[in-house]
Amino acid sequence: MSAPCISLLTDFGVQDTYVGVMHGVIAGIAPPRTRIVDLSHEVAPQDVAGAAFYWEQALPYFPVGSVHLAVVDPGVGTARRIVFARRATDLLVAPDNGLLTPFVGEAEVFELTAHVALAGCSTTFHGRDVFSPLAARLARGEAPEDLGRVVPASSLVPLERAQARQVSPGVWCGTVVHVDRFGNLITNLPSALGGVRSLSVGGHTVSGPVARSYAEREAGSAMVVAGSSGWLEVSISMGDAAGVLGVVRGAEVRLDVAPS
Amino acid sequence: MSAPCISLLTDFGVQDTYVGVMHGVIAGIAPPRTRIVDLSHEVAPQDVAGAAFYWEQALPYFPVGSVHLAVVDPGVGTARRIVFARRATDLLVAPDNGLLTPFVGEAEVFELTAHVALAGCSTTFHGRDVFSPLAARLARGEAPEDLGRVVPASSLVPLERAQARQVSPGVWCGTVVHVDRFGNLITNLPSALGGVRSLSVGGHTVSGPVARSYAEREAGSAMVVAGSSGWLEVSISMGDAAGVLGVVRGAEVRLDVAPS
Amino acid sequence: MSAPCISLLTDFGVQDTYVGVMHGVIAGIAPPRTRIVDLSHEVAPQDVAGAAFYWEQALPYFPVGSVHLAVVDPGVGTARRIVFARRATDLLVAPDNGLLTPFVGEAEVFELTAHVALAGCSTTFHGRDVFSPLAARLARGEAPEDLGRVVPASSLVPLERAQARQVSPGVWCGTVVHVDRFGNLITNLPSALGGVRSLSVGGHTVSGPVARSYAEREAGSAMVVAGSSGWLEVSISMGDAAGVLGVVRGAEVRLDVAPS
Repeated sequence: MSAPCISLLTDFGVQDTYVGVMHGVIAGIAPPRTRIVDLSHEVAPQDVAGAAFYWEQALPYFPVGSVHLAVVDPGVGTARRIVFARRATDLLVAPDNGLLTPFVGEAEVFELTAHVALAGCSTTFHGRDVFSPLAARLARGEAPEDLGRVVPASSLVPLERAQARQVSPGVWCGTVVHVDRFGNLITNLPSALGGVRSLSVGGHTVSGPVARSYAEREAGSAMVVAGSSGWLEVSISMGDAAGVLGVVRGAEVRLDVAPS
Repeated sequence: MSAPCISLLTDFGVQDTYVGVMHGVIAGIAPPRTRIVDLSHEVAPQDVAGAAFYWEQALPYFPVGSVHLAVVDPGVGTARRIVFARRATDLLVAPDNGLLTPFVGEAEVFELTAHVALAGCSTTFHGRDVFSPLAARLARGEAPEDLGRVVPASSLVPLERAQARQVSPGVWCGTVVHVDRFGNLITNLPSALGGVRSLSVGGHTVSGPVARSYAEREAGSAMVVAGSSGWLEVSISMGDAAGVLGVVRGAEVRLDVAPS
Repeated sequence: MSAPCISLLTDFGVQDTYVGVMHGVIAGIAPPRTRIVDLSHEVAPQDVAGAAFYWEQALPYFPVGSVHLAVVDPGVGTARRIVFARRATDLLVAPDNGLLTPFVGEAEVFELTAHVALAGCSTTFHGRDVFSPLAARLARGEAPEDLGRVVPASSLVPLERAQARQVSPGVWCGTVVHVDRFGNLITNLPSALGGVRSLSVGGHTVSGPVARSYAEREAGSAMVVAGSSGWLEVSISMGDAAGVLGVVRGAEVRLDVAPS
């Protein structure tokens, strides 16, 4: 039996004490042995889609019963709702701005109605004053039904996200949805697409087939890799694909596959 | 009952292993279930005033009984004292360089006299060799009286800090004391000052009244916000006030309020 | 008795969720009270020597019985082995690329043979899929003999490292092996070399004797310091030696000492 786990995902950075303060608030409310995990605090400011991408990659790897809290909240202090979702495996807490969109298929969705806020609740830092207490109370086993009311998933603010699509036989169009620390270009094209002939991005065409490891090609070669979360990536062996190819997030990608 | 909590605040950054090593030292001395929280390690090198600001914002949100350790210590290895303060709610540990100044009003202040240093204590990394063992021993309940001797608060090295002041009826002068990750300009002017007409900083004048949330104005608009720790801030909705207005920490601020 | 401790050292950075996901995987496998310490995740991409340097500085300060995991793994997905070492004090886990070299003198070395990988193991993120489960299983007390087979230390891929050497009576040549957050230039010349007359690096000559603290000289002065891990450093009081002197890691250092 693992200890309760609360993961934190924010755009607060770690220079300021915003994240440390959230740990402090949770420490005072959650069960003592609760593990608090920093998923990332380097989401770009107000980048809801980037945060949702991170959640999608990360959540499958946490213990059953975890509480996942994302605070990317440009609407803090407005009438935007605070929502949470119960899945078979975990609980997700976020402002109602699209963060839950990828996860609500098999979830019950709640709107916060209980008063969980700290005394002297601010209007500009709900991560500290509302979200942390809420996550901590869920981690100590309070029932979602006691903290909120069920709302239809269709009532949530939807997340606009680029979708990959087949444009003609053997041709897919997609998008670079993330550039990671190594400069790998992560696309929204599933690795399950077989028979990759080539991938074009930013005026460069990278030949297939799909590589299974970054070290498979000689240093400096661009290649298409089956990434660790099921998406095709463009990488440069021992190098920085984003920098070398001059590609940023949002770039369009064309994939040519052998007709099956 | 929450577990013992030790918070860490340093100017060590997280690229090197200095902070990780402090965790390791504490892990070997403190009670097993002690929670170690990284408040921030991105204090600018040797910036004592910046660290004190962070402590002031953060400490009220930690569990009663926490031990807070700040190591911003340009005098490491010199005869500067190592001091700690006991308040009703927590214990603070720091070098004697001004870090305790904002907190000693209701505290008992101690100078370290016990030998707590690790074997082979260095002269350049007391964060590892002295401060971490000291904080860990306080976290396991050793009495301050057994680790140090009481000294008058007036014996501490004082922190020089900018103070806001009223210069004429309805006019206050203050300072930008912090620029946060989002570019918000945090001043030393209390939000409790009512009737804000305008705030001037860096050659720009931002009109009142005070906004209650960052999203209250249209994107790109500068505004005065009541920040989450009780101070007026200058923010730009969905933007970076420091960058757009060209303002850095230390800038003078003029506040015009309606005479009460 | 301290709780089990797992330290993590990677080149993953903390912008992406790679590190947070490793915490999640470990949380689900290791004993609940296991402490997970982030040693550093800012090793330069694929910088095996830099990671080994960090390990050498940090490991002596962790509790006996700790499990130390380093994932700097340019060969991920290739046939490179996954290895671990048992010392009297701790266990070290890494890819077979030189990371263990400085530590195997008194260690038993094992090659992973057990199947510990997560279901759906990727070929590009063994930090998540293989190393984290392995470290967690060692932390819960599984015997190295049950997870791998003993291999000779001589079979490990060696780490190429610059060695300091005496080139003539009173003259040593060494290298800057690390530049830390403060701009201190850390060399591979041992502080135990007595009678330092001067140290030359990057066209600058810094006079001895060796200082015992950064504050010993007036602000802005360059000095040779006995660093906290037993190596000579070049520092500038209240300043950034690397920036001011224009020196980067790898620079050659000449040390003149009084003949003993």
